[in-house]
Amino acid sequence: MKDIEIIPSILREVIEKISELPGYGEKSAQRLALNLLNMPRGEALQIIKTLFDMLEKIHPCVECGLFTEKEICDICSSEERDRSVICVVEETFDAFAIEKTGKFNGLYHVVGGRLSPLEGITPEDLNIDKLIERVDKGNIKEVILATNPTVEGEATASYIYNLLKNKNITVSRIAYGLPFGAVLENADDFTLAKALEHKTPI
Amino acid sequence: MKDIEIIPSILREVIEKISELPGYGEKSAQRLALNLLNMPRGEALQIIKTLFDMLEKIHPCVECGLFTEKEICDICSSEERDRSVICVVEETFDAFAIEKTGKFNGLYHVVGGRLSPLEGITPEDLNIDKLIERVDKGNIKEVILATNPTVEGEATASYIYNLLKNKNITVSRIAYGLPFGAVLENADDFTLAKALEHKTPI
Repeated sequence: MKDIEIIPSILREVIEKISELPGYGEKSAQRLALNLLNMPRGEALQIIKTLFDMLEKIHPCVECGLFTEKEICDICSSEERDRSVICVVEETFDAFAIEKTGKFNGLYHVVGGRLSPLEGITPEDLNIDKLIERVDKGNIKEVILATNPTVEGEATASYIYNLLKNKNITVSRIAYGLPFGAVLENADDFTLAKALEHKTPI
Repeated sequence: MKDIEIIPSILREVIEKISELPGYGEKSAQRLALNLLNMPRGEALQIIKTLFDMLEKIHPCVECGLFTEKEICDICSSEERDRSVICVVEETFDAFAIEKTGKFNGLYHVVGGRLSPLEGITPEDLNIDKLIERVDKGNIKEVILATNPTVEGEATASYIYNLLKNKNITVSRIAYGLPFGAVLENADDFTLAKALEHKTPI
């Protein structure tokens, strides 16, 4: 943001910080600040408090990485889930999208991003070691790689496949019912359900 | 957001609250929450603290409505500004955009939105009475209506013009024309017609 003297420093700070978030730019940061400033102060403070509470309470599940208020998430601690299948996703919201379909009853593993040499994201930045550890503990029959059908998502799936291929388990990739370049969490339930149904062994 | 049991309630609350903000939807609310949860907790808390500080410190200037940390903003209290001209804008950031041009040295007046019967926004919801009061105090020679060139912005400018037209001051509207870098054959008819109508001698 260009240095305009009349912009209050705290407002400039907010816009600078928010516009550094992935997917945000100066205009969307301005819009967020403006929205908060334009609403009744009590309501705006309530939103800030909720964000603060979220940061206090929500952490990744120590097993699978899903965001949860507990140490171990409800899925990992459930006795009704199939504990022999792990579905690997990039982010928590991808898992939520799959849950919406009601077509998956196994466990999840959130790697927390995607391999991207351009952005300097390497395997060490992702929660992959823990996945291998879970598989090595035994009892896992299948790992479904449900990273996004994008270049980075494919690279991530491929990297994980290579780590798992000799472990005597089935490794499958979520089916291409999804158009290349799409974002998994935006897919409609039907497409996502089809993609799960037609998963193919690698 | 559909009710998925595994989504922690505080996370659902954040997404619901953020997605109610103008211009936000469920996906952009999810992205904001995810961004904050994925970054180092200390940095995320710092952003929340900055937003909180912003809400504590920033208020509309009692004269012109620009967001400021002071009671009277730097522009209204400056002795170097032309106090006979008021530029009326919809929002504070519009004024900041005009400041960036360095081409305006008068005062501002932020009405805080735009007339929109569809959204139930009437003149009473906007900071218009205070503008009339400022004009009636005297010393104002010109009011420039710089609301957005949209249907709502036009309606707002037109409404204010009718309140000011008999006050023996110049009331002008920011010019319509082709934006720099535009492709003429892609311009809409209205803009092109206005650009021709207001052609200026070289």
